[in-house]
Amino acid sequence: MSNSDFGLIGLAVMGQNLVLNVESRGFQVSVYNRTTSVTDAFVAEHPDKKIVGTQTLEEFVQSLATPRKIMIMVKAGGPVDAVIESLIPLLDKDDIIIDGGNSLYTDTERRDEWCTKEGLRFIGAGVSGGEEGARKGPSIMPGGPASTWEVMKPIFESIAAKVDGVPCVTHIGPGGAGHFVKMVHNGIEYGDMQLICEAYNIFKAAGFSNEELADIFADWNAGDLESFLIEITANIFKQKDPETGKAIVDLIVDKAGQKGTGRWTVMGAVEQSVPLSTIASSVEARILSSMRDQRLAASQILSGPSNTEFSLGDLTKEELVGMVRDALYASKIVSYAQGLDLITAVGKDKGWDLDLGAIARIWRGGCIIRAKFLNRITEAYEGDEKPTNLMLAPFFTQVLTDAQQNWRKVVALACLNGIPVPSFAGSLAYYDSYRAERLPANLLQAQRDFFGAHTYERLDKPEGEFFHTEDWPELIS
Amino acid sequence: MSNSDFGLIGLAVMGQNLVLNVESRGFQVSVYNRTTSVTDAFVAEHPDKKIVGTQTLEEFVQSLATPRKIMIMVKAGGPVDAVIESLIPLLDKDDIIIDGGNSLYTDTERRDEWCTKEGLRFIGAGVSGGEEGARKGPSIMPGGPASTWEVMKPIFESIAAKVDGVPCVTHIGPGGAGHFVKMVHNGIEYGDMQLICEAYNIFKAAGFSNEELADIFADWNAGDLESFLIEITANIFKQKDPETGKAIVDLIVDKAGQKGTGRWTVMGAVEQSVPLSTIASSVEARILSSMRDQRLAASQILSGPSNTEFSLGDLTKEELVGMVRDALYASKIVSYAQGLDLITAVGKDKGWDLDLGAIARIWRGGCIIRAKFLNRITEAYEGDEKPTNLMLAPFFTQVLTDAQQNWRKVVALACLNGIPVPSFAGSLAYYDSYRAERLPANLLQAQRDFFGAHTYERLDKPEGEFFHTEDWPELIS
Repeated sequence: MSNSDFGLIGLAVMGQNLVLNVESRGFQVSVYNRTTSVTDAFVAEHPDKKIVGTQTLEEFVQSLATPRKIMIMVKAGGPVDAVIESLIPLLDKDDIIIDGGNSLYTDTERRDEWCTKEGLRFIGAGVSGGEEGARKGPSIMPGGPASTWEVMKPIFESIAAKVDGVPCVTHIGPGGAGHFVKMVHNGIEYGDMQLICEAYNIFKAAGFSNEELADIFADWNAGDLESFLIEITANIFKQKDPETGKAIVDLIVDKAGQKGTGRWTVMGAVEQSVPLSTIASSVEARILSSMRDQRLAASQILSGPSNTEFSLGDLTKEELVGMVRDALYASKIVSYAQGLDLITAVGKDKGWDLDLGAIARIWRGGCIIRAKFLNRITEAYEGDEKPTNLMLAPFFTQVLTDAQQNWRKVVALACLNGIPVPSFAGSLAYYDSYRAERLPANLLQAQRDFFGAHTYERLDKPEGEFFHTEDWPELIS
Repeated sequence: MSNSDFGLIGLAVMGQNLVLNVESRGFQVSVYNRTTSVTDAFVAEHPDKKIVGTQTLEEFVQSLATPRKIMIMVKAGGPVDAVIESLIPLLDKDDIIIDGGNSLYTDTERRDEWCTKEGLRFIGAGVSGGEEGARKGPSIMPGGPASTWEVMKPIFESIAAKVDGVPCVTHIGPGGAGHFVKMVHNGIEYGDMQLICEAYNIFKAAGFSNEELADIFADWNAGDLESFLIEITANIFKQKDPETGKAIVDLIVDKAGQKGTGRWTVMGAVEQSVPLSTIASSVEARILSSMRDQRLAASQILSGPSNTEFSLGDLTKEELVGMVRDALYASKIVSYAQGLDLITAVGKDKGWDLDLGAIARIWRGGCIIRAKFLNRITEAYEGDEKPTNLMLAPFFTQVLTDAQQNWRKVVALACLNGIPVPSFAGSLAYYDSYRAERLPANLLQAQRDFFGAHTYERLDKPEGEFFHTEDWPELIS
């Protein structure tokens, strides 16, 4: 058998599906897994495919055409380093290692330097789309040197999802840029999911049935909100539990897990001083959901309107649906504005020269946040004049203008009725802060000058000139 | 001249004031500053005091009685390490180095190990109270070995603020515990200040004059909200600019700075998976305030109600004041609940065995967040049964019960009128989430199972048993 075009280490579901994807595009693929029985079973399952099973790393490396292209799909963290360490002595100059897991981008930067020092080439590539995306076409966010990207381009473009014939992969930037953008993608995914949950929670409290919910989301999916997550949500409400005949969604425990990427995104934003209220509150919402025992106890102690029912009053159901749709759409725009802002800030800091339009373009297919409105984001950044903030791109300004009044009403309604809407409200606070000609931070600056002589600027004096009041009124205490 | 009882390195304002404080309690103090002219001027200013100026570190060290007690008051970060490095060769076994700056607690942990290895004793002590606190009596949060605390106790207790005769200092815990608690204290300070600003912003939009504002805050300070920050706020509104005769608060630019500790607190919370919505939104509010040029531009583009005026409608001014007071009080309780939760989580993680009641007790005087209601927190943690969350302590449950309806109304009113209230709203979302018997995370878990086979628990099955739906309805796309 001739040498393989591509090698993959780590045959968990994502790894297996990526192998099948690559193979289906006409490439021969060598595979290696630490537990060799997994390799054997996988190869045996696909007897007619150009998949070469190997028992040792040496055999794996020898089976590959040079320059070798080896993708690692193992657990983020130590395991990635361990695999790289084992590979280094076996590889030749200019061989390419691709880390396709959800690695922290600063780890990717370190590994990039390490491999480069060893004469190898390294790509940290975010891969989004879950199991199905891996099999049929994911969105791929590769970082690393442009010259290495050129070598990988044919394979990456052939396995990536396509939208209007355009592959959902592009060279993001050097070093950790790919994994960084994938991290923010995942943070945005947290936000999108939480916003849908808040909409659902309001409808549920208003007494909507699962059938009605399925129809609402299906209807939304036929409009501007068209997206993978809205579509699967519609379908989820239709799913019955075979055992009980009940809607499965009503049987699922309301405790959500959170993995590294959501938290990393928030920490990155705090570090860079980028407001990220929508995603940050989404991460917190998951944490609070997971504290279910505390919640059940507190629900008997802390007062407020019951969040399981509220009266529509004068509102019709249709009106509520329209209002919540606007709240969701507007909050989603804020969330993307914040996420793109974080990408811009870190990109500048690192000197990565990131292309926001191209990034939005490769998110249109394959990945979990794929959505029609990403076309609009791409358009917003395609012109010569890039908006300072996504909200200021004319298309989005118009959507926000149309939506803002309903958005306010939904947040007010939810707060008055005891329904938590951390991300709707956190997004609205950002919107109203960002458009505020004046915020109350003048008082805060006065306080800081009072107790710490921190000084302040004055509206009637040139910027950059600082003043201190020596004689703040004495306190009685 | 006999040997000094105490030495201090770093004669910026805080350092100078601490020296004067220690000296005023009957101790002789040696001082050293890198720029010796500062030392000379300081000593010359206080000819009758037991202050020994020194020109070199050697002379400084030689002037101290053993075991030496040396406090460092220099900029956090590299300068602290530089001073320690210079001191080590000059010191004898068991001499004590105290870092009194705002050091990151993980740096303190490292320095503690380092000094211990060198045979020295190290204390990382948070010192709060600004310039005036340093001079008259700060709140001190020392971390390090209990035995070292015993040696320092007489000096610390004599210089600390006193409330009802009790000094505002206690041994927080080993290692970085003192600086960690000081960091959270600062985060809480961010929250307290932002909540006051949100109240101010609503009143300002409703057309209240600075005289009215001064009265409102003075009135609040006579009740349950009595605190340093409320009191100085009342006084700030009275202060006129000598140059223009206008209220100084109206002349100050609404751009707030943020230093390390607020951000560190938020990052610590994200790392520990502790929801900290009030403080996190306060940090974001400062960042948004500092983006003033963007805001001014956006204020011409993004629509919404003008946030500089809203009509009270049927509300009287008194009613609005009472409602906003409730919103502020309830949000403040949430903020402390979250901060104490973070202290508990990190304390457990580090095995520090922290005493929340004692921590609240030493915050009652000297520091920026000093407030009457800290007595109630101390009481809440003094009994045998500690509340799982501050909100569940009977006193605070009652306050929240009484306040929650007005709190909701204020958030609704602000949102409808375009006034950003990120921290009022973020606190309310926490309250309503924490007391929610059911959150919409069941849908989120269904989504995750749909696209990633992440599995879920079922309400009708034992906890810890995980299920996966194989046949989620197919998507059309």
